[in-house]
Amino acid sequence: MAPTDDVGASVLTKQISMKIEELGEFGLIRHVTEAIELKNQSSVKGVGDDCAVLRYDADREVLVTTDLLLEGVHFDLTYVPLKHLGYKSAVVNFSDVYAMGGEPRQITVSLGLSQRFSVEDIEELYAGLRLACEKYGVDIVGGDTSSSMTGLTISITCIGDVERGKAVYRNGARPTDIVCVSGNLGAAYMGLQLLEREKIVYYQQLEENHGHETLEAAQPDFAGKEYLLERQLKPEARRDVIVQLRKLGIQPTAMMDISDGLSSELMHICEQSGCGCRIYEEHLPLDYETASQAEEFNMNVTTCALNGGEDYELLFTVPLVDKDKIEQVEDVRMIGYITKAEDGKVLITRDGSQFDLKAQGWNPLK
Amino acid sequence: MAPTDDVGASVLTKQISMKIEELGEFGLIRHVTEAIELKNQSSVKGVGDDCAVLRYDADREVLVTTDLLLEGVHFDLTYVPLKHLGYKSAVVNFSDVYAMGGEPRQITVSLGLSQRFSVEDIEELYAGLRLACEKYGVDIVGGDTSSSMTGLTISITCIGDVERGKAVYRNGARPTDIVCVSGNLGAAYMGLQLLEREKIVYYQQLEENHGHETLEAAQPDFAGKEYLLERQLKPEARRDVIVQLRKLGIQPTAMMDISDGLSSELMHICEQSGCGCRIYEEHLPLDYETASQAEEFNMNVTTCALNGGEDYELLFTVPLVDKDKIEQVEDVRMIGYITKAEDGKVLITRDGSQFDLKAQGWNPLK
Repeated sequence: MAPTDDVGASVLTKQISMKIEELGEFGLIRHVTEAIELKNQSSVKGVGDDCAVLRYDADREVLVTTDLLLEGVHFDLTYVPLKHLGYKSAVVNFSDVYAMGGEPRQITVSLGLSQRFSVEDIEELYAGLRLACEKYGVDIVGGDTSSSMTGLTISITCIGDVERGKAVYRNGARPTDIVCVSGNLGAAYMGLQLLEREKIVYYQQLEENHGHETLEAAQPDFAGKEYLLERQLKPEARRDVIVQLRKLGIQPTAMMDISDGLSSELMHICEQSGCGCRIYEEHLPLDYETASQAEEFNMNVTTCALNGGEDYELLFTVPLVDKDKIEQVEDVRMIGYITKAEDGKVLITRDGSQFDLKAQGWNPLK
Repeated sequence: MAPTDDVGASVLTKQISMKIEELGEFGLIRHVTEAIELKNQSSVKGVGDDCAVLRYDADREVLVTTDLLLEGVHFDLTYVPLKHLGYKSAVVNFSDVYAMGGEPRQITVSLGLSQRFSVEDIEELYAGLRLACEKYGVDIVGGDTSSSMTGLTISITCIGDVERGKAVYRNGARPTDIVCVSGNLGAAYMGLQLLEREKIVYYQQLEENHGHETLEAAQPDFAGKEYLLERQLKPEARRDVIVQLRKLGIQPTAMMDISDGLSSELMHICEQSGCGCRIYEEHLPLDYETASQAEEFNMNVTTCALNGGEDYELLFTVPLVDKDKIEQVEDVRMIGYITKAEDGKVLITRDGSQFDLKAQGWNPLK
């Protein structure tokens, strides 16, 4: 039940396996990191000592973000190939650094591995991590691997930098600022729904076949759904948007990346900035495939766009004077504006009704 | 079966519990981090945005280390109180920064929590983290909390700094350098053996009592063993040694902290430096309690000192010319010297026999 994309091998279809114990912890880290060359000027020393050593110029601020990903909570290896998982694990951290207006430079990777994982599995995971790092110009400077009683644990810390004083926080939005969002929303959530549905179908068929896999069960038809699956399995961070903003001299007043859903992130920006907002349903950016899939699933596409999560698009606010400049930024839409706190956080629907925004975003503690 | 130390409540004796779901992820992070004040000049922005923002001067190098701690692999909550666990989780990271000759400044903390943990448990864990941070002058600048399917996962990243060009690596040892070690070795391992033994006794008594806890079973007699337990449950990082070395103008040629055992760490320094070493059994620093407990357990105390692990003492090498200076450093012993690679890595026993050192350190992948 691997997705149609041929990048990465599913753990379900694993054929060969070198035992991790044969290499040991140090051997395994050496094995997956030995060919890594440091490319960033700020990376002085990478894997292999008590700490990584970095050198940042005095005119830079250092950004640090960290993410802990747990099997069964943040990812499901029955449909997420390990290479994709590695790629995504890195990219979601880069996304946090871009969301401060910065550039990711280094990551450290800690893995907890249960006995069912082989050296080849970890190679796959690292292949994804390294692909992401190559694409975004990031160095892997630290690694730590240990056994786990249960499943796979991935902890990634990303270090980046930004010009001193130019970090964009969540608390700088002011009334009349324009609310902007990059790309489109809800597609990753639709991709997840597709994968979850196929997983159920797969297990049903497996049961009907008394535990024997059939070719049909193992290969669901995802034709025409590639975009939605890619948004879920292999998201990208919006460096391109940050680069454009920098070129045009636009300094957002507030910014964050959309990981829990637009509504939830808007609430954060408004609450931390002490403001309200008015967002227009008609301006929410949606991809055709998302809308079409929502219809097929009998879901409200606006709800998906507001609460879907895992979009990794950028949500930011800019002063009204930057309106003309924002119109020049590719793949960015203006979806509303910031108001005073007492005006609330509202969504204006297509028919002109007003609804209070609610953070129904994905809560990993529920 | 909580240890004699009264710091921290055992999860076994937990009486009250506020459900984590009631607070939610953001509420929980806010709850445990809201009173945190940033004390370091380099900490610009802590918890609450996409990234922490740090400012380091141009004459500093930035150090980054990370540790992933998994329940059942790295710690056992049947005898480790959560406050101690928090303390130790932070300190072992500080130890890595000191082992580069640096000063820890910030940590980020990611937690994965299964449903059996209450808000009070996390408060305990954070109380330990904060105690360690206060003692060592470190800021908590990032946090991330999510649910876990199984047990407790703790991922900590520590950021520190060191004067540019002064970071001490593992690869700088040269023949004739003196090998030094701080404190004493093997005590933490003895503490672990004590706790493991009591755990077995506890479960045996529990079985004999048909599942009913008795007062005797719940309170083992650890009188006279406090030092060994403290070394296991509440280790300290050797900032004092680093401060002394700096004051005396001693720049070690190689250094690391002893987490996997002296033998294993000596192998790392020798291999990365392309050298050998001669270590003298009679010079290995041992505490009286360690030796006495080893005898009680019928264990070879030298083996415990060489392979015990979790000492978090500093192992370092200095040029021969620094011998007089090293003699002035409190609580540091010279245990041997560095040789050419072809002379091997050997231990000279009290009776003058030579043995090849082997890395039998604790391997978390086995």
